[in-house]
Amino acid sequence: MAMAGRKTVTEQVTQYMHGLGQRARQASQTMAMADTALKNQALLAIAEALEAERAGLKQANSQDLAAGQERGLDAAMLDRLELTDARINTMIEGLRQVAALPDPIGTIDDLKYVPSGIQVGKMRVPLGVIGIIYESRPNVTVEAASLCLKAGNAVILRGGSEAIHSNRAIARCIQQGLAVAELPKDAVQVVDTVDRAAVGALITMPEYVDVIVPRGGKGLIERIRAEARVPVIKHLDGICHVYLDDRADHDKAVCIALNAKTHRFGVCNTMETLLVHQDVARSLLSELAELYADHGVELRGCPVVCEILPGAKPASEADWSEEYLAPVLAIKVVSDMEEAIGHINRYGSHHTDAIVTEDFTRARHFLRAVDSSSVMVNASTRFADGFEYGLGAEIGISTDKIHARGPVGLDGLTSQKYVVLGDGHVRQ
Amino acid sequence: MAMAGRKTVTEQVTQYMHGLGQRARQASQTMAMADTALKNQALLAIAEALEAERAGLKQANSQDLAAGQERGLDAAMLDRLELTDARINTMIEGLRQVAALPDPIGTIDDLKYVPSGIQVGKMRVPLGVIGIIYESRPNVTVEAASLCLKAGNAVILRGGSEAIHSNRAIARCIQQGLAVAELPKDAVQVVDTVDRAAVGALITMPEYVDVIVPRGGKGLIERIRAEARVPVIKHLDGICHVYLDDRADHDKAVCIALNAKTHRFGVCNTMETLLVHQDVARSLLSELAELYADHGVELRGCPVVCEILPGAKPASEADWSEEYLAPVLAIKVVSDMEEAIGHINRYGSHHTDAIVTEDFTRARHFLRAVDSSSVMVNASTRFADGFEYGLGAEIGISTDKIHARGPVGLDGLTSQKYVVLGDGHVRQ
Repeated sequence: MAMAGRKTVTEQVTQYMHGLGQRARQASQTMAMADTALKNQALLAIAEALEAERAGLKQANSQDLAAGQERGLDAAMLDRLELTDARINTMIEGLRQVAALPDPIGTIDDLKYVPSGIQVGKMRVPLGVIGIIYESRPNVTVEAASLCLKAGNAVILRGGSEAIHSNRAIARCIQQGLAVAELPKDAVQVVDTVDRAAVGALITMPEYVDVIVPRGGKGLIERIRAEARVPVIKHLDGICHVYLDDRADHDKAVCIALNAKTHRFGVCNTMETLLVHQDVARSLLSELAELYADHGVELRGCPVVCEILPGAKPASEADWSEEYLAPVLAIKVVSDMEEAIGHINRYGSHHTDAIVTEDFTRARHFLRAVDSSSVMVNASTRFADGFEYGLGAEIGISTDKIHARGPVGLDGLTSQKYVVLGDGHVRQ
Repeated sequence: MAMAGRKTVTEQVTQYMHGLGQRARQASQTMAMADTALKNQALLAIAEALEAERAGLKQANSQDLAAGQERGLDAAMLDRLELTDARINTMIEGLRQVAALPDPIGTIDDLKYVPSGIQVGKMRVPLGVIGIIYESRPNVTVEAASLCLKAGNAVILRGGSEAIHSNRAIARCIQQGLAVAELPKDAVQVVDTVDRAAVGALITMPEYVDVIVPRGGKGLIERIRAEARVPVIKHLDGICHVYLDDRADHDKAVCIALNAKTHRFGVCNTMETLLVHQDVARSLLSELAELYADHGVELRGCPVVCEILPGAKPASEADWSEEYLAPVLAIKVVSDMEEAIGHINRYGSHHTDAIVTEDFTRARHFLRAVDSSSVMVNASTRFADGFEYGLGAEIGISTDKIHARGPVGLDGLTSQKYVVLGDGHVRQ
């Protein structure tokens, strides 16, 4: 009976999710045709609603925080869960920024005449319905909704169970904003059940959902990768490298290697492995070791590194494919650039990798040969970010090659259709 | 024992496919860096090998044809299977055309300075390893290989079991061409087993295969959609519409409606449903009915059509979502353009749909509102084709929204990575 009861709950959740999907599909048709002005009006009205509901948001959030403490969530998770005034301000500011971005929808590119006499171009169109699955941080609810909305999509948001009260309160503000602009309320739907079967349903209904964007830890991404029957734009690991060439400018090498590791430790575009040319290893590493020590960074090196830096621990094979997200750095001395490139393509996660060199030919070769979503010359890996790249906003960083690669902005939430203009043209 | 024996065969096939995958992944790294001149040299050398091996190709093909007749393949399938001199010429010409296309790989777009001072752009790169699964037509072996090769990918080709001798003979020519340019022989591998488990393995090894392009009937596509663990660029149905507006030029309407149906019957961009505005239905349909009769087209209409054209059969609900691929046409009279758009978005397959009108506002609205991979004004749906669109070549037409939509040329077999150029820039 317990089994039967469980099955019934799963079926109920699946039915509930299909209902969300159907309504999202319906709303997506209106959203695809929505005027830019209406979409912007909704975004600004959501911002106003968040401002007006600030006290209510914090109260709902305190319920989640209390429940989280009771459940024994760790400090990092509780921190991500908290909606401070500063974070509410950031959500409001983000909405205004997205409203200010150019509307990609309807843009026609490359419209040109071809020999038959017809004109052929490509029009940017919404993807349709986007499913976002994320954990703990309730501000993702607003960020993701605003980008999907601006790109003319309907969205189904599935936040973590630990943030359910916060997400419900935010969802009410979003509904208010949609109502002001008279856009369909089903354009943004927040999954209002904590049952895990909801995720299972969301990622297996291609008839209602066009793409899934998971934002969360490796466990979540792996589960979705294994089970999804819908295309997924995903971010897996960020094992980023900086290679310091023997023709690097010494000061640039030091600045970039320091910034790439110590600017922030827990983010995906932070350097996790430093590669150094053997001819400059001693001078660069001696200087860098002191700077890293000032920032409390633990060094794990290959045998040559350990000989140069007695304070470094020996790196194991596993260190070369580890995403520390912490003040730990693996360092390897290489004999030349080719060895560095080979190491990056083998052990890296195809996220972001940089060379520091003054050599033109090597820079040109590195850019082509490294198979990563961002490849850099003389710049810190920390620049790999939608805002820094001028996309205006970011739904995440894709480590896939299909559809969207690297930081994904509004364009990544769109597709293109061909438009053909003729004057009675027929095929001969 | 029979079961155990079967299992062992499946395991052997899976192991064989993993071997192909590993070697393809290896070869893809060399291909990604291959010079344009070398890739073109290989393409032209394959063309020469096909010319030199013409007799051998036809002999291998005759083995397949004999076996096909014995197995009772239908006439259409045997026709697709046959390698005539004309088809060999087309393969040779196709290789020369692909060699003449610009190389997309390494192209950098939108390189621009952003406020931090770094330059950010996007470089076009190969996808990596592409799996092509197709049926009967052995010329696909050459077409698909040439496009994948030019776009810097490695490819695994899985043709139909009925074409195995032809495909082996073509594969030998491809190997000769690759050897001339000293490109890795594993850049193009033809699956040399007819066991169906080979397809199952090919579409479930994301570690070796980056994307699957199936080319074949609905059964094949549905199976791949259901089982694939790798992204798929697919073509499902071509239920294309032409809507004749009451503001259409009469002659253009007749020409386009005739051409879209009768230029070729068995292809995906042929019109399957004709929609006509009620105010012009009588005059247009009376004229068109005679022309369709000349081409032996059977007409199936809504009640209004049947009243205008006594020779038309009544259409059932199923007719509106049928891809006939035959001299059959469904016709519906609509009260206005909105009804036409609603019908297309509901019953169509999001492939190619056209309006015939002289009205600017309606043309503009139709282009935006119809959710199809190609949307046309005053042109025949038969133009939906990579060659007609100026892509130079076509691997297929995608009815997906993710990654590639509509006719897919070389660019659809590539991805883009961000390139960042700095001068020692670090994140503040």
